[in-house]
Amino acid sequence: MLYSKLFGKTKKSSKQYDSVNATLLTKSGFIDQVMAGTYTYLPLGLKVLNKIEQIIREEMDTIGHEILMPALTPIVNWQQTGRFETVDVLMKTTPANIFAKAKNDTEYVLNPTHEEVVTPLAQKFILSYKDFPFALYQIQNKFRNEPRVKSGLLRGREFRMKDLYSFHTSEKDLKEYYEKSKEVYMRVFNRLGIGKDTVIVMASGGSFTDDFSHEFQTICDTGEDTVFFVKSKNIYYNKEVTPSKAPKVEYKDEKILPRKDVRGEGIIGVEELAEFLKIPVEKTTKTLLFETDDNRVIAAAVRGGYDINEDKLRKVVKCKALKLASEETVKKVTRAEVGYAGILDLPKSIEVYLDESVGNRTNFETGSNKTHYHSINVNFGKDLPLPKKFYDIKVAKEGDLYPETNEVYKVMRASEVGNIFPLYTKFTEAFNYKFIDRDGKEKPIYMGCYGIGPSRIMGIIVEKYHDDKGIVWPSTVAPFQVHLLGLDMKDESIKFKVYQVYKELIKKNIEVLFDDRENVTAGEKFSDADLIGIPVRLVVSKRTEEKIEYKKRNKNKPELLSLNELLTKLKIKS
Amino acid sequence: MLYSKLFGKTKKSSKQYDSVNATLLTKSGFIDQVMAGTYTYLPLGLKVLNKIEQIIREEMDTIGHEILMPALTPIVNWQQTGRFETVDVLMKTTPANIFAKAKNDTEYVLNPTHEEVVTPLAQKFILSYKDFPFALYQIQNKFRNEPRVKSGLLRGREFRMKDLYSFHTSEKDLKEYYEKSKEVYMRVFNRLGIGKDTVIVMASGGSFTDDFSHEFQTICDTGEDTVFFVKSKNIYYNKEVTPSKAPKVEYKDEKILPRKDVRGEGIIGVEELAEFLKIPVEKTTKTLLFETDDNRVIAAAVRGGYDINEDKLRKVVKCKALKLASEETVKKVTRAEVGYAGILDLPKSIEVYLDESVGNRTNFETGSNKTHYHSINVNFGKDLPLPKKFYDIKVAKEGDLYPETNEVYKVMRASEVGNIFPLYTKFTEAFNYKFIDRDGKEKPIYMGCYGIGPSRIMGIIVEKYHDDKGIVWPSTVAPFQVHLLGLDMKDESIKFKVYQVYKELIKKNIEVLFDDRENVTAGEKFSDADLIGIPVRLVVSKRTEEKIEYKKRNKNKPELLSLNELLTKLKIKS
Repeated sequence: MLYSKLFGKTKKSSKQYDSVNATLLTKSGFIDQVMAGTYTYLPLGLKVLNKIEQIIREEMDTIGHEILMPALTPIVNWQQTGRFETVDVLMKTTPANIFAKAKNDTEYVLNPTHEEVVTPLAQKFILSYKDFPFALYQIQNKFRNEPRVKSGLLRGREFRMKDLYSFHTSEKDLKEYYEKSKEVYMRVFNRLGIGKDTVIVMASGGSFTDDFSHEFQTICDTGEDTVFFVKSKNIYYNKEVTPSKAPKVEYKDEKILPRKDVRGEGIIGVEELAEFLKIPVEKTTKTLLFETDDNRVIAAAVRGGYDINEDKLRKVVKCKALKLASEETVKKVTRAEVGYAGILDLPKSIEVYLDESVGNRTNFETGSNKTHYHSINVNFGKDLPLPKKFYDIKVAKEGDLYPETNEVYKVMRASEVGNIFPLYTKFTEAFNYKFIDRDGKEKPIYMGCYGIGPSRIMGIIVEKYHDDKGIVWPSTVAPFQVHLLGLDMKDESIKFKVYQVYKELIKKNIEVLFDDRENVTAGEKFSDADLIGIPVRLVVSKRTEEKIEYKKRNKNKPELLSLNELLTKLKIKS
Repeated sequence: MLYSKLFGKTKKSSKQYDSVNATLLTKSGFIDQVMAGTYTYLPLGLKVLNKIEQIIREEMDTIGHEILMPALTPIVNWQQTGRFETVDVLMKTTPANIFAKAKNDTEYVLNPTHEEVVTPLAQKFILSYKDFPFALYQIQNKFRNEPRVKSGLLRGREFRMKDLYSFHTSEKDLKEYYEKSKEVYMRVFNRLGIGKDTVIVMASGGSFTDDFSHEFQTICDTGEDTVFFVKSKNIYYNKEVTPSKAPKVEYKDEKILPRKDVRGEGIIGVEELAEFLKIPVEKTTKTLLFETDDNRVIAAAVRGGYDINEDKLRKVVKCKALKLASEETVKKVTRAEVGYAGILDLPKSIEVYLDESVGNRTNFETGSNKTHYHSINVNFGKDLPLPKKFYDIKVAKEGDLYPETNEVYKVMRASEVGNIFPLYTKFTEAFNYKFIDRDGKEKPIYMGCYGIGPSRIMGIIVEKYHDDKGIVWPSTVAPFQVHLLGLDMKDESIKFKVYQVYKELIKKNIEVLFDDRENVTAGEKFSDADLIGIPVRLVVSKRTEEKIEYKKRNKNKPELLSLNELLTKLKIKS
């Protein structure tokens, strides 16, 4: 490919986006933003995307069959699973104007995921136990109604997705396939050049199961996720589900003091309160009231410095959904203005859930359930009974311990590159999709779903592999294998030689981007090559004489090679 | 590929759809209808689609650069070209439920075509005369708000499209590229196996130009278009733009008779009228009144048996839009009820446009512009003046003559497989996209657009190449090169042999679909093979002994070949 003919060259000045990947990919001519979260892939970017997708395809072909489902789907499919009214990223289509409305006024769903299409599809074809298990996958565009989309290719309103769905006659078979899929996924990430930094992380299984799903997270300083690692067990947790034990806080020679109610009007936040009361933050208590979907009001408390993890709380409370209690409810329950709720003297009808971080303290603070008042020097067994049980209902944070072994977590930033979910019978039941077993009886079908976002991965690779000069592509996904720069091309003999090298490389089926521009300085060519990030840079110039300069993008030292040496180096039989 | 493992096998009974392609492709397991106009491509179908798209891609790469644009686009892009309020196939997205609405309430266009994305994209990158001409293309999903979608893959609400856009510094350069694109398109259709029956047809250039666009039409009995061929000139016209001259109708020894107004209450249609008046249909006249966008009322008339072509009429009348006059206007102008309008005695303010078919007649009929009355024995020069000019404002029909040579058109059914449009400066002007010429001045940019629908082509190939047993794929797009049937496989030696043949073919990189099912009769395997339509069928059975039976899908006679002979026949070096 001649760079002079390429559509989408590097830009001298380019907008700084909110993420490294958007900034670098735009400046180097891989993508163009149509609007936030929606990009055009320019020729260079499309080459990378295709390579990523082809690697994914080859690996998925070992465990499933490729198909291609439409993005548009009848609304009734989504009503059948109850998701039409609840999924908050769901978009539908509607005619854009009066002429369109007159032509066809029907609305359709624009799929953000395809369980609602693939389940009825499978149901049309495979019913007998003999044909299970099987798996179907596709690579196509997904649509999500995201607000304020940031992070370049990492989060999109329209993005590329590989989604695979597996179907099984038993939970055991699902689990076996699920484990196998982890291996296949790791092969994909290895081939994409991110395998050694990608780990399998326990994550939430969604609201319909207490089970975990699994995320593949690539360790990366700019990652938007936080991963907690238990070294002795070699387990990784996503922050959202990390079991957490607060480190013990001890203050020497503490005597039990008498409870005291202190007036502190309008002092609400724990930091402000600790300062006001002249006590450590760890001695404060954060108490929140919630209302559940089954009409209970509950109180939940964590030690100051922590937040409540609503997902953990929901599971402990055993309800399907909960939300912060209304001002009205708080006033009724605490008989105080909002901001002074505490764990003291609550009505008996209120269930109280205390995080383990609330325990093991002496002379702690809690709201007084009295407007403008905070109680200090509160102690279990004196001012309130020691609860029968403490829970883990907090958001884990750095410094927390893994409860089982009491070891401190290693905490790291990471970016999600894939996720897999055991769906069990949620969708097959919604569509009444059953199989006919050996005994002639209808039995439930178990499903799993398995996602990888190729466009997202393109962004993550750039987040992970770049330096201050530009992108550093892994060789398997680079748009070209080598970037050939012709310098001093006004000299006809040099020009002849560089075209010779170009032709020779093409003949050997090497993917070459040839910077053949004649009106551009050597400096510009070098900095463009660094920005674009192709793994191998070749230079032919006066200075290289009969040789060709060879330099890897991730190394500093160039070498001078003959054409034959070069071809050998590029592992090509000449 | 083992057929036993394939997802999407042939169906014993399958719905009859409204088109051959939908019926056959569904029954044979290539596609599955999600809703009218929206299909899932099953593994077999996706293989065909990919082959079609790869052929298109390889040819387009010779004249353009591949990119990938999003389907979602800001509404403002479409407002800028004035098409947001007018394009009747345009859909927009909107949040599907209250949670989605709370998250992001913005609406977006779902593109049915990409001028609104590609023009501002090009504008960001290429401004200097030095970088012109250039062309960008993509292959992705398009969305159209179609009503009552029929015809299987031929018309979709979501469908695959290759759309290329070219940019030029002059009309001359656009025209040169446009001609070159015709050659490239014909190479595509040749490679797809439909080249010899595909012709380039003049079609409407759309409402913004009097120029023609060009369609590539594949002659096909079930085609939805009608093509008119002028043999001496080797020109094809789409019916919608065919210049037409009505064949002369002569009645011997006719004397000019006196005009007579005949009462015929409620007799409106020309057929009914001719019968009532006992005259040939050709002697009747169909007169319609129209209102134009510039507030004129005009009368247009064609000979009975013809319809008015509003597009031709619009160009003759020189207006941007016209519609049938309202009942109120008709009554005011004709001073009669609707249904009795004629070309006699109309008010002077009304412009009258007569089709040439109205002339050259003696003693003809026309509405009397008098409720319940029809005038017969009307003659030009006696009952009304001979007009200065006759026009061609009718829809062409079989039997019509090409005006220039007076030869009768050859008329044929055809299906559109591609179309190309000179867009001139319509879109570049809307986005104020200009280039900077050698002289430093800004000048207009000329554009063309060039479409091919890969999914539509898949349907047309089936419409064209099938028999009463099933599909007959051209070899370049067939899902596999050969379909190997193993019969009598309960015999272990036969089973061994057929697997040997399978492995040998795979080793030679031949794409094989191997019907390895053991619980299916020979008859079923043969009829499935005919239905699926792979070009070569191979059989290994007791009867074939040491040989392999070779039969082409489009031939009746099988041959018995040795493995070596077979490999030679399949043009593979063994």
